[in-house]
Amino acid sequence: MTIENLSVNKSFGGWQKQYGHHSKTLNCTMRFAIYLPPQASNGKKVPVLYWLSGLTCSDENFMQKAGALRIAAELGIAIVAPDTSPRGEGVADDEGYDLGQGAGFYVNATQAPWNRHYHMYDYVVNELPELIEATFPVSQQRSISGHSMGGHGALTIAMLKPERYSSMSAFSPINNPMTCPWGKKAFTAYLGKDKATWAKHDASELMRQATQFVPVKVDQGLSDDFLTEQLKPEVLEAAAKVSNYPLELNLHEGYDHSYYFISSFIEEHLRFHANHLNK
Amino acid sequence: MTIENLSVNKSFGGWQKQYGHHSKTLNCTMRFAIYLPPQASNGKKVPVLYWLSGLTCSDENFMQKAGALRIAAELGIAIVAPDTSPRGEGVADDEGYDLGQGAGFYVNATQAPWNRHYHMYDYVVNELPELIEATFPVSQQRSISGHSMGGHGALTIAMLKPERYSSMSAFSPINNPMTCPWGKKAFTAYLGKDKATWAKHDASELMRQATQFVPVKVDQGLSDDFLTEQLKPEVLEAAAKVSNYPLELNLHEGYDHSYYFISSFIEEHLRFHANHLNK
Repeated sequence: MTIENLSVNKSFGGWQKQYGHHSKTLNCTMRFAIYLPPQASNGKKVPVLYWLSGLTCSDENFMQKAGALRIAAELGIAIVAPDTSPRGEGVADDEGYDLGQGAGFYVNATQAPWNRHYHMYDYVVNELPELIEATFPVSQQRSISGHSMGGHGALTIAMLKPERYSSMSAFSPINNPMTCPWGKKAFTAYLGKDKATWAKHDASELMRQATQFVPVKVDQGLSDDFLTEQLKPEVLEAAAKVSNYPLELNLHEGYDHSYYFISSFIEEHLRFHANHLNK
Repeated sequence: MTIENLSVNKSFGGWQKQYGHHSKTLNCTMRFAIYLPPQASNGKKVPVLYWLSGLTCSDENFMQKAGALRIAAELGIAIVAPDTSPRGEGVADDEGYDLGQGAGFYVNATQAPWNRHYHMYDYVVNELPELIEATFPVSQQRSISGHSMGGHGALTIAMLKPERYSSMSAFSPINNPMTCPWGKKAFTAYLGKDKATWAKHDASELMRQATQFVPVKVDQGLSDDFLTEQLKPEVLEAAAKVSNYPLELNLHEGYDHSYYFISSFIEEHLRFHANHLNK
């Protein structure tokens, strides 16, 4: 596995870096960002928070806008932000912002033309952590978080692989993609028409049926333009009641879908993950 | 004076907003951003930090990337970020990123074709504060800060109008524009060839001759690609020694010219300004 360093910025005593590498899983060149806190320079292996971004985003949005590096530096946590889909000229795409490049939805596509490259689930669960843990001074302690489409990704991945994650969290996640326009469009394209397959990547379905619990924290703004049609936190909440999943769901008056919301509460999420990563 | 609200985002209990307005000074429509901390919603008039951005930036970069709103919310300071030049189809421009739109250099242009719109000095010193103080729950206490070209702007404006600003600060400022490529190009275009005119907008020249002192803090990364050719903090430092200006200049190993640097030290700047604004 060879990776190429693309950029380096010192921040809060640690290092924010971008790397490019050839992904076997995605069959293309991928870019990711990593923040290594100061503790990682002192021979200590630090735990990793994986951050999954939302529609149209890349590895850059979270690192630039969330205000997370200050807290990661204090807590001694690395942050890894992958891109949101396979990329490149030979990679299938769609004119919509909500399908194709920038909209991988963290599933393994089974349908043409998407199945040639769109295996973001395997990439995030397996290939990327293997690469990170082989390359950087990090431990195998992992947590996962994300925003919107990435919130869907974080919750579903952690519930599908609870043994791999100490904790999960989300900002404004797509909680029930099987029933919302974004999810129906993407799942139809990537997974076909079989709703039993969709259910395996629906956070509310997974939470309703869960028997093994991952510590979880979800924050949602009540002035979010996508709240009612696309996000549906009430469905996740109802699912948690069925399985007695210990869901912490916080609703915030006045906050919207932007990084101005995420940055306001990212500190609470990082401290939540740190508590579980350091157990 | 009529202004149009263009966007609203709740952040850290306060409000980040963008407005458009017709500027008489600049003879075009301008956009600015303002962060109103929670204290401004409680009938209290809060002081204002004006932030001047660098080349190619708009009113958005600082609000999105600096991580400043958290601290402004705690300290009860409003932040106002103007655009970096006049804008629009009828406004003169240049192919270079370092002249014309996005590169107003915070001076009043005297040379054609720039003199029709490029009066950023008057806009920042007079028209914008008048508009802000007439429209929002803010006091007439002002501080000023900025980055790179905006650092030059903040230092020169506060030294030219010391009675208007409680404190000034800068990240990676262009300290001696008269002698660096960015400054020589812009000053020649906007101000003509008379170097006596240039000197009135050169932070090092102003500091060398100063008799009235504004509290000042400057931070500079030592891995900044522009350090030697464009920024020249050593010239500012030498000037401060001549006039006994109480300059606090902090040099930081490993940090570059980006917002990853600014965000690492913005908290110290906001606390510095708060101490002087609340006297």
